[in-house]
This record gives sequence, structure tokens and C-alpha cells, in this order.
Amino acid sequence: MRKEVPLLRPSNNGNRYELTSPTAMPKAGGFLWNQKMMIQITCRGYATAQFMQPEPAKYSHAPNIEAKTFMQPEPNYYTHHPGRFVYIKDLETGQLFSAPHEPVRAAPDRFVFSAGKSDVAWAVENMGIRVEMVMGLPTHDVAELWTIKVTNISGRPRRLSVTPYFTIGYMSWMNQSAEWNEGLTGIVASSITPYQKAADYFKNKFLKDKTYFLCETRPDSWDACQQAFEGEGGLHNPSGLHQPSLSCSDARYETPTAAVQYRLVLAPGDEREYRFMFGPAFDEAEIKTMRGRYLSKQAFVRTAEEYAAYMERGRGCLRIETPDKDLDNFVNHWLPRQVYYHGDVNRLTTDPQTRNYLQDNMGMNYIRPVVARRAFITALSQQEATGAMPDGILLAEGAELKYINQIPHTDHCVWLPVTLDVYLAETGDYGLLKERVRTENGDNFTVFERFCRAMDFLLKLRDDRGLSYIAQGDWCDPMNMVGYKGKGVSGWLTLATAYALKLWADVCEHEGAADLARRYREGARDCNDAANKYLWDGDWFARGITDDNVVFGIKKDPEGRIWLNPQSFAILCGAAGRQQVARILPQVDAQLTTPYGLVMFAPAFSKMREDIGRVTQKAMGSAENGAVYNHAAVFYVYSLYKLQGQQDRAYNHLRQLLPGPSEADYRQRGQLPIFVPNYYRGAWREFPRTAGRSSQLFNTGTASWAYRCVIEGLCGLRGDARGLVIRPQLPSSWQSIKVTREFRGATFELDIRRADVADVTVRLGDQVLPDQRVTNIKPGETYELTVLVPRHDAPKANGTTNGIDAH
Amino acid sequence: MRKEVPLLRPSNNGNRYELTSPTAMPKAGGFLWNQKMMIQITCRGYATAQFMQPEPAKYSHAPNIEAKTFMQPEPNYYTHHPGRFVYIKDLETGQLFSAPHEPVRAAPDRFVFSAGKSDVAWAVENMGIRVEMVMGLPTHDVAELWTIKVTNISGRPRRLSVTPYFTIGYMSWMNQSAEWNEGLTGIVASSITPYQKAADYFKNKFLKDKTYFLCETRPDSWDACQQAFEGEGGLHNPSGLHQPSLSCSDARYETPTAAVQYRLVLAPGDEREYRFMFGPAFDEAEIKTMRGRYLSKQAFVRTAEEYAAYMERGRGCLRIETPDKDLDNFVNHWLPRQVYYHGDVNRLTTDPQTRNYLQDNMGMNYIRPVVARRAFITALSQQEATGAMPDGILLAEGAELKYINQIPHTDHCVWLPVTLDVYLAETGDYGLLKERVRTENGDNFTVFERFCRAMDFLLKLRDDRGLSYIAQGDWCDPMNMVGYKGKGVSGWLTLATAYALKLWADVCEHEGAADLARRYREGARDCNDAANKYLWDGDWFARGITDDNVVFGIKKDPEGRIWLNPQSFAILCGAAGRQQVARILPQVDAQLTTPYGLVMFAPAFSKMREDIGRVTQKAMGSAENGAVYNHAAVFYVYSLYKLQGQQDRAYNHLRQLLPGPSEADYRQRGQLPIFVPNYYRGAWREFPRTAGRSSQLFNTGTASWAYRCVIEGLCGLRGDARGLVIRPQLPSSWQSIKVTREFRGATFELDIRRADVADVTVRLGDQVLPDQRVTNIKPGETYELTVLVPRHDAPKANGTTNGIDAH
Repeated sequence: MRKEVPLLRPSNNGNRYELTSPTAMPKAGGFLWNQKMMIQITCRGYATAQFMQPEPAKYSHAPNIEAKTFMQPEPNYYTHHPGRFVYIKDLETGQLFSAPHEPVRAAPDRFVFSAGKSDVAWAVENMGIRVEMVMGLPTHDVAELWTIKVTNISGRPRRLSVTPYFTIGYMSWMNQSAEWNEGLTGIVASSITPYQKAADYFKNKFLKDKTYFLCETRPDSWDACQQAFEGEGGLHNPSGLHQPSLSCSDARYETPTAAVQYRLVLAPGDEREYRFMFGPAFDEAEIKTMRGRYLSKQAFVRTAEEYAAYMERGRGCLRIETPDKDLDNFVNHWLPRQVYYHGDVNRLTTDPQTRNYLQDNMGMNYIRPVVARRAFITALSQQEATGAMPDGILLAEGAELKYINQIPHTDHCVWLPVTLDVYLAETGDYGLLKERVRTENGDNFTVFERFCRAMDFLLKLRDDRGLSYIAQGDWCDPMNMVGYKGKGVSGWLTLATAYALKLWADVCEHEGAADLARRYREGARDCNDAANKYLWDGDWFARGITDDNVVFGIKKDPEGRIWLNPQSFAILCGAAGRQQVARILPQVDAQLTTPYGLVMFAPAFSKMREDIGRVTQKAMGSAENGAVYNHAAVFYVYSLYKLQGQQDRAYNHLRQLLPGPSEADYRQRGQLPIFVPNYYRGAWREFPRTAGRSSQLFNTGTASWAYRCVIEGLCGLRGDARGLVIRPQLPSSWQSIKVTREFRGATFELDIRRADVADVTVRLGDQVLPDQRVTNIKPGETYELTVLVPRHDAPKANGTTNGIDAH
Repeated sequence: MRKEVPLLRPSNNGNRYELTSPTAMPKAGGFLWNQKMMIQITCRGYATAQFMQPEPAKYSHAPNIEAKTFMQPEPNYYTHHPGRFVYIKDLETGQLFSAPHEPVRAAPDRFVFSAGKSDVAWAVENMGIRVEMVMGLPTHDVAELWTIKVTNISGRPRRLSVTPYFTIGYMSWMNQSAEWNEGLTGIVASSITPYQKAADYFKNKFLKDKTYFLCETRPDSWDACQQAFEGEGGLHNPSGLHQPSLSCSDARYETPTAAVQYRLVLAPGDEREYRFMFGPAFDEAEIKTMRGRYLSKQAFVRTAEEYAAYMERGRGCLRIETPDKDLDNFVNHWLPRQVYYHGDVNRLTTDPQTRNYLQDNMGMNYIRPVVARRAFITALSQQEATGAMPDGILLAEGAELKYINQIPHTDHCVWLPVTLDVYLAETGDYGLLKERVRTENGDNFTVFERFCRAMDFLLKLRDDRGLSYIAQGDWCDPMNMVGYKGKGVSGWLTLATAYALKLWADVCEHEGAADLARRYREGARDCNDAANKYLWDGDWFARGITDDNVVFGIKKDPEGRIWLNPQSFAILCGAAGRQQVARILPQVDAQLTTPYGLVMFAPAFSKMREDIGRVTQKAMGSAENGAVYNHAAVFYVYSLYKLQGQQDRAYNHLRQLLPGPSEADYRQRGQLPIFVPNYYRGAWREFPRTAGRSSQLFNTGTASWAYRCVIEGLCGLRGDARGLVIRPQLPSSWQSIKVTREFRGATFELDIRRADVADVTVRLGDQVLPDQRVTNIKPGETYELTVLVPRHDAPKANGTTNGIDAH
């Protein structure tokens, strides 16, 4: 029977993605968030949850003292990894299984894991029992709301024990305990966040150091001590389940757990539904309040509705109907959800990297532009006196720059005009530029002035050749040693600087500051000239020059020979002229293309090259070495759309960076198509077995850029000061698509089809719009547009360019 | 059959302690070390190993990214905890077990875990197969040497697979991989220690980032990838074992593992012996060298002999034969081994706390006094310009003060005279005092001068009442907030200061500095007067006074009412006069005695008392809250011996802090009697279930002090400037003991027995020695002494004191 259902099925309305085997893609799962927490849960029941207080913290822990790190790709799961499970035991036969799949791992008769936009659900059948589990979140509080329904589908009476087991884990070496709390009808575990310095006591004093697991219905027995529950049996067969009841243990400096047991008799067809809450709290009073607020059937229904409405606010500005149904589903439902997540919670960090913060909010322009507007003000209010942007933006009182944000990177200013470009295109709100922003160092400038200062800083941050310094890093490339002595330069950053300067020059122009526009255009030209002089390697642009004056990312390099980002930005900034583009594109095709997408560079490194930098440390065994780094890949797609006439290349590369579409591909990637991950494994030639695997990490600027590529590139729907310009770039095999676009409060219904026209023709009613532009847009209005695109706008060979500067 | 053997058996020569069940004391295990590494391994096969490069590092990791913390008590074990295992599968029946016990946990027919002084060994019988495992270490290198012998004891031919499985685990997020290396005949896993800052690259560059598992005999198949080996089966039943062979997998950014498989046929009685090496390395060349040096039968034998000789160098200076055979075994073998460990490797840290470093070396005086001498010089070379001692002593180039050593504690100077007392008593080497020691700040003083400066600093570190400031902590009490505002004072430290000053005054006296002697004696009197004025609570001394002027550790406190340390030191320093001692001892008996020893304070705290400090954070669920903190308990024992006439109390308390002696007690404590742990769980009245449990942590100053109590107190064998003084304090029920004592190069054979004498009488041949003192000791000589002790030296009631100052 299991063979009959496909491994994956999307729901009709795109709100769910279902997986029908727990073993084919064991790391695949869903994720939910609200403004205070995030939870990622696998189809097998392993979960990683974080909440903010204000720094990220956990209420369900590993079995040992875990390090606090940034969010890691490719999480490892192991028997005692935190999870949410329910054991079902037949009290007649002694047979046992667990749902969703761990820890018993019994082969189910039927299995459905369902990743929804506003809940995660399972249906598991085994031993004639159906277990349905649903996890939801409240919109404003930190808690998991679980429904577990058990149905007897065996056709005969059954005597069962039902034992939810939720991991609490190793809470703290300073203090940990847990016990049943009769008044709260649940297990309450307590701890003290460890500290050494007296001053930290006051910081920690109000942390939510308790974890609770509350039962709507009082269980028959429980265990609050991990070892008491598990015994010699182990998690796959806990000793506690072989007793007439659980031992009602407490934990005293032992690992706390939450296991509760119901013993029941089910007639054929009978079902029993249980509700539970799991989360952190400061004290019992708070737990009591949370119980009162959420732990009932009515409250679960109401909360689910509220949460669905909250998710719906992130539905985005685009609906498409194309020949590519997988793309439709992803773009109409999942991609804006991921974009919303980034803009809504800033990756649940109190100090997002400046480049991430700006790009995440770039996506938010398509969802809630007012949030993006605030983000510009917040970011600029932390601009340094030199005009530089800091490595991270502090979002909470008392937050600090941590981890990678303590390493000097030189690219942050670039992202100001690059992301403002979308804000202005979406809103036309040039008024933002006139806002005054005061920083802590006391200076007080308008947004416009601050952008100029940032651009001036970029111009200054160059050596006497005119190339941009790289210091310990630019962007996300894992290189921190190219320019640590202060001399090394970045090819990519030189080109990105030129791109940023050009974009900003256009804004200056619009604002009537022609002198400034000229100044920044000249600066861009300088950068481009320097890049061409020092970094053009005959068929592509080099990645940089080290402190020791070694150019790298060039033909003679046996490893790391060609890098994607410099090529994308050379196209965007116009450093690459027609002939150069015609040389670059085939090299990217030949050297950077893999079955799983465009790799960030190739060939993968096998060892450290000390004159290049740390990238080579992430050598043979490392996932990121030569990975399909989607953030880099999507820049390339964007540059192809900007190039015009590259719609097939652009579409193909865009399509590859989205998860799927084939089932074989899903299996290799090991991820459901509900988000675009930051990378797929690279080193495809060196390690074909592992190439293509998803990082499972949904934190990535790729989401905003992919959404932008679909909106601005594929659908060709970009705003400007006067209105909405419509220039779709359909892949050559597509005859027509339908698009609904929300823009400046109006709705645009577009019927886009090929026709015998010489150029894109946009009709509103029977009127052909000049310059393919809708002007005088009225909020609340719906515009029905017919868009005709030429039948023969198929791609030009090898990148004959259109609309980019000649070099 | 299993019922017939006792749970524990010591070997005849005291070199081993055997446990005959893997489940009765699941955390019990053995430990081995050399100067570069330490490994603690449980009877079930879980292991924790660290090596120095120069900071502590691991080559066998947890399944997730572990935090680096100081060595934790009561380690938690879980399925994927690092360990060393071998699976045995019957290829006819498919039956499976693993040795030692994890991960399969099959009930063995016979089980012996054997913790030796220089190896750890197992014999496990199941399914008619005997598995013998032995782990040894080299003396100078970092590596585990494993012998695994498989014997067919079933009386019929058997076809088996033998699959050693050693955990490598999650090595690094930056890079991890593993593969079979044919040239080395083993699995080699590689990683890069994570870093962010460029400067750290150069620090990390030569770290041993590889883990190897080498086989003397080439296996038939292997797995280097954890998931490939484990599959859906899980560690208790790995899928890899259900295939005709292991899959010969590699790991690429997957969790590395070392599993190798031999398939063999064994005739009845046949055996097969395998040898393996497991450890870290910088590169393949190093692995090759290590293989050549160690991986053969001859090399294993030679290395085991060398290692046994290395351990023998730590045998200590005392052999006793008493009516208490458990005590004999512990004191003759295990206690000096533990003392040796501390002095030999300084707890494998590069920045031991100053108090620990000095007390650990106090023990080393009984083993290798030259090491202790060097330690004084090392410690004093880091004395601050103020005379203060730093919080930790840096032992390696580039080492830093970490963790608790960044928290200001005020007691470090106290330990200089307290530990020098033993050095001078053991060696009579007053020449040390004349050595000149230069510090980094450029000052240059003799050891004598430096001690004076330290004592002056202690005198200065007092408030205008004459009480010693506590800052964020004194000693090991978990209190860091009593005096963080700079006002709070420590009762204990005031008394300990007095004790230190008195000891130092005696040295000054000996050195002919009568003025200084007077000065420090007056200082001691001041301290004692202040303590009596502000801290005597009628029946005991208070623990301190907070920043907010609240006296604590007094009668009216419902929690933390009485603390042990102030009482011990009030006896030692003479602050407690006769009547006071007579009041203190019964209070200690009544309030601090538990079946598992003397608790550090009582009653246990149930919550934070903000005016006291952090001790109250370690509240109800915490092990250390109101624990039998052996380091505190042993001070009290020492003070009782100093008191004289308290030999029964002293012996009983001493006996309690050593592991055992009853089997029920072993079970509750869960530890083999091979070391004294830093604590046994307290809160006996509040949590009887968990009270008494061993911390399993062998890092503790208790070891030196316990050895000192036996030598100086029980046996009464203490040196002074003139020779060896002999004043045994036998418990009243003992009629005689025999003692061998090595002292200043000579050997003393003592026959100590009760007789009708008025005072201790020491005979050398037929000569009665004046003042019970042997003088003119000649190195190399053996002295046979007969010691007669009065029949009626039984303890005086309630501490009528003898030999202490009147108040």
C-alpha cells in the first residue's frame, strides 16, 4: 500500500507539503516561528527550538552541555537529540511503536508528515492504531501547542498505553530538577542558567529557566527523570513502558524529562484526543497563566486561526500561474513565507549581520514595506562617524556584536543602495531620503546624506590601484585571511562597489543632485577600470588579490579557479562589456554548473592555500567547499535577468536553486520544497555521493533575491518613480502565464502571452501603454492587463547583451 | 551463577578493583593518565578523554557541538556518548551482544570490570563467547592501546563477526571527514578546529585535528561514516551488522566513526586476539610513527611495563596494616595514586586555581618533594606587586586565566604557609626560603620575602573590624555574591588567615626573624579577636557578613545555618578556646553529620537568599547544595587530629569520606573505591533518594589532605626541623597497626601497639627516643621502631582540647 502513494504531495491550495516516508528523507521537516521563537522539526520527530530572552535560548536541550553557536547547517540527529514523541504500546501483546517515527523506528503501515504554513502535522498508522499529531504556535507567546489523537482502526477492542515523551534534556550544570506539579497538571523542570561573574547574576535573574509540559487531561502516571523512564531498555524500548505504570519519578540534578502515560481501552473506531503545551517560563505563575490562555480545545482552535492570519500577512505581492506548477506552488506560498520569516524576526538574532539585515528587509519590501523602511532608519542610526556601516545591527537593548560580527568585513555599505533600489521601486517613497537620523556618536544627517557618506566610505576603502580592500572578509565567502594584513583586495567588492555607486547615482539624479550623480558615476567608472586592469583574466574576472599580491580565482589556479560572484557583479555594474559577457557566460556554464545548481567557485579546494585565505580550510570534507551557494547563484540569475535576452539561462538556474523539482532530486537534496536553503552540497565532481544535499538551513538572503528575480525578472514587474513597468522574460518554451501582482495598494491582473509583436506590448482595456508602464496607480483599484511578448525573444547566443554599458 | 560473586572485589595486591555487574553501578569506572592526557572510562564502555595541546582537547567527541567547560561532576551518559565498544554477532543465529555492555546492553552471563592502577580491563561472557578487553596508555604519548581477545567457550564451532566500534563523533562544523587508509591500516578522520578571527588560524595551525583508529590486523570491512554504520537499526542494533559486510563507507561532512569488522570461525576453545590504537594526530606521518612505535604485541607488553613503572613512581611514602583492610587498600594503593595524579598533571589544566595548585603540590611532598619545591617557585614567580597571589597559576606559554579564575577570590595567599608546612616537615629544606624569585613585573625577592609580602597582603585585605574581605569568593564554596560590592567579609577567611599567619610566624621564628614572628602572631591574634567579637554565635562561628552587613551561618538562619569550614579553621587557628570547641563539636555532630559524611553546610538552601550569595542558586535540585563536600570534611578531620584526643571522631569522619566501605554504600555512591571524589550528594534530609551519590570527579584537594590526615594524624608521623616525630592517634578500638614510612630517604618500620604507658613511647632497638622523635636520619637506612601508645588515650568527651591556645 505504501508503494502506491508518491513520496511527496503538495496540497491543492499550496498550504501543505506532505511526505509519505520517514526514512527516505530523514532530515526533512517543517518550521514555524513567531516573533519570539522558532522551531524546526523533522518528519521523524526531532526538533530544534529557540526563543529570545533577548538572546536565543532553549527549553528543550541536548543530553550534554551544548555549545552556543550560530545556527548550523546540516544538523546532526542522534538517539537523544531533542524531540517530541509519543509511544503507543499494546497492553495485550506488549508490542510497541512510536510516533512520528523516533525513537522506536518501527516501520509504519502508513505515514504522512505534513509541513503546513501554520502548523506541522503527522498521521502514522501502525499495529492497527492511527496516531495524528499536530503542532501549532501562538502568535505572541513562546509555547508549542500539541494535539495528539489516537484512533483504533483495527476493528477490534484494544487496550493501550499512550505515552507522550518530550525531551527536556541537560538544562544546566548549576542546577536542574523536575517534578510533577499537581496544581498545574504537568511536569515542571527548573534550572539556573550557569554564570560565574556576579554581574551576570543580574543579567540572568529574569531568564525563563523553567521548562513545562502541561497536560489538558491528567495522566495516570509520569516520569520527570530521564533515567527513571529510560532505564536499561534505552529510548527505543524504555524500561518504564514495561512496568504497570511509569514510576512518577522526580529529577534531582538528574536529566529532566517529560513523559506522561495514559492507559485506555478503545472500542473499534474509537478515538481519544489529548492536548499538551510545552515551553519555557519564568515561574509557576507564568505557567498557570499560559495554561489558562491556551490549554483547551477552544483556545487551540482560536490560536490556530490567529496564527494562520499572522502567516497570511506574509503572503507577499505575487500569484503566478505558469506551465511550471512546482514553481507556482513555491512562489505563491513558500517563498514569500520564507521572505516574511526573515523580515519578521531577523533570523532570531539580536545582532544580524548588516548585509543580512538589509537584504532580509529587501524582501520585506514585497510584503510589508513599512518594516523595510524602519530597517533603513535602524541600520543608519548605527552608521559610524566615518560613514562605514558596522558589521552587525544591534536590535535589542544590551545586545552585542558576536561571532562573525567581530570579524572586520568591508562590504556592508554596498547593500544600502542595492536594497534601497527595491524599496524605492516598490513604494516610490523618496521621502525616506529626507528623514533625519541621529547616531549615538551624536552626528545627525538625513538618510540621503548618510547614503552619500556610505558611498564615500566605499570609495575611500580602496588601495592606490582603485581596488577595494577585503580585510578579513567581504560578503559570505568563507575567506577571512585574504587581506588581514591590510593590503589584500576583493575583486567582487570592487565590482559591487561600482554597482552600488551607479544605483546611488541614479537616486542622486532623481533628487536633482546632478553633481553628486556625476561624482558617483565617475567613482563607479574608476572601480570598473581598475577591475578590468587588474582582475580581468581573459575569460572571467578574478576573485581578488591577497596581502602578498597574489591574484586568485584565475586560469592558472588548479583550485578555486573561477568564482561566481565577481562575474555576476561585473555584469550588474557594467564592468563586463559585450565581448566580455560573451566570454564569461560559457565559462560559468562549463565550470560552475552541476546537476544541483551553480557552485560558488570551482574546482573545490583540497587543502589550505595560505596566500588565499580561510576558504581553503573548508576543504575536502567540508560541505561549503565549492557548494551550490544559493545566495551567490541567485545573484547570477539576477544579473542574467538584468542582461536581458538570457531568460532561458536565468530560468534554468533559478529553477535549480529551488528545492526539487524531481522526486529523485528531492531525495538527494533531502529537503521538502518549503524553503530555499542557503546551500546544496558542492564538490560534485569530487564527492558525487553527497553532492546536492540541502543544508536544511532556511536562514539565507537567497529568499529575498529569488523572490526579486521572479517579480522583477521572470514576471518583469518593477516599479519606478512613475509607476509599474512591465517587461516579462518568459523562458522560450512558455507560451503564456497569468500573474496577480499587488503594488502600491492596487491589484494588477496580468494575462501574459506570446504574440506576433516586435516588443512587449501592454494593454489596459483597449489602450496600449507607452513604455510598458502603468502610471497614476490608484490604491484599491484592480488593473486587468493584457501583455503580449514577442514570439522570438528567445535568448541570444552566449550573452549578446542588451542594455548594459559598453566597457 | 552471577549471584555467587560479590559485586566488588579488590585484588590481593591492591592493584585492581573489580566490579561484577554492569548495571548495579553504571557510572563506576576507571581512570588512567599520563602527562599529556587523561581518560575516564565507565564499566559499560563510555569514555571521556582529554589531551593537552596545550589547552585540553578531544579526539573522541559527542554527537553534537559540545561546550568547553571545566571538568563537570556527575557526567551524564546517553546512547551516543563517546565510548569504546565491540559488537559480537553469531552469524548462524543472528544473535548480538556488545562488550563491555553498551550499546546493546544484553545481560551478560559473566561480567568483570577491572579498574587497575595501570590499565582498565573487562571480561564479558555472553552467547558462549568470552570477550576480554584491556586498555593501556603509553607513558609519553597521547594514544589508547586496546587489546580485544575473543574466545569460544561454548564447546562447539562458531562463526562470528567481531566489530570494534569506537566513537569519533562530531569533530567540527568547519570541516570533518573520515576514510579508510590502506597504508596505515586504519580509519583516519580529519577536521579543522573552528575559528573566526584570522589570528586564531595561526594558533590552531598545528593542532592535532585528526583522529585515527589503527588495526594491527587488517579487518574485512569497515565504516568511517556513523550514519552508514548505524542506519535505521540504531546503535543497539546497527543496520551495518545485518549486511554481509560493513559498507566501507567514508564520511564527508558527516559524523565520522571508527567501526571495523572481522569475520571468523572459532573452533571450541579457540581464541583470537586483536590490537588497536586510538588517538589524535597532526598528520599521517605522525600516525605512521605512532603505529610503528606501539602497534604490536611486543610494543604493547613493553609499553605496559613502562607505564606500570611510571605509576609505581607515585606509590607514596606510607604502607599501613590496620584492622581496617579497606582503609589499608585505599591508603596503600589508591590514595597516593590520586595524589600523584594531581601533582603530576595539575588536573590537566594550563591555569590551575592557585589554591588547587598549592594543595595538589602539598600532596606531592609525600611522593616527589622536588616537584612541590618547583611548584612554590612557579607560583611565587606570578605573585603580584601587592603581595597578592593571582587567582590561577599559568603553566604553559600563552595560557590564560579562564572560567572561575576570572572571578576575584581572596584566599589564595592563605595556602602558601599551609602547604609550605608540609614541604618543610617532609624535607626540612629551609634552603627553599632563600631562593630568589623574579616576577614578570620585574620585582625580585626571596621566597621568604615573598611569603612575608603575601602575609602582609592578607593582613591588609581586612576591613576596619579586622575581618577578611570575601569579594566574589573565598575557597570553593559556591558563593560569588557575598562581597561583590567590596564590603562583605568571610568568617572562614578571617580564621584561615590567622592559621596561615601562625604557621608563618613559626617559620619566621625558625629563621631567626623574631620581630616578624611577633608581628604575624599579633596579626593572627587580631584576626581571632575579630572573629570572636563579630562571628561567634554562641555555639559556632558564622560563615561571614554580607555587603549589606547581614551575618550569615548563624542560629537564626533557617537555611545555611552552620558551615563546616569556619569551625575547622577556628580549631586550627586557635580562635576557638576549650569551651568553644566543646560547644562546636556536638553541633557539628548534630547538624552536619549524615550517613554519607559531613556536609559542607546545613540545612540545604531551597532558594536564593540575595544577601548571602550564589550558594543559594545551587538550590534544591543541585548536587552541591549542602553536599558532603569532602574537601571541607577533610579539613575538619585534620583539625580534629590537631586537637588531639579526638581520634575516634577523626577516624569516623575520615572513614566516611573515603568511598565505601559497605556494599550498600558502594551502590548508593555508585563509585569504585579507587579515588575520593570531590563530593557526595548532600541534602540528605530533603532528598534521601539521591544523597550519597559520588560526583565521580577525581579532581579534588581532598586527596592530599586525606593522605596528610592518615600520615600526620592517624599514624602521627610528621617531620620537623630535627627529624621525625611519632605520635599515632589510633581509634580506640584498635590495638595495634604496622606502618612503613619513607622519610628523607630512610625507611621506618613501625610496630605500633597499645601498652600500659602513660604517653606515647618510641623505641629504637632498646633505646627510648626523647620527645618521640627520631633524629639524625640517614638516607638509605631502615629504622625499626616499636611504638607503644597508652591503652587509655580514648577520646575526651566533647572536645576537651589539648595543645591549642586558650582564647
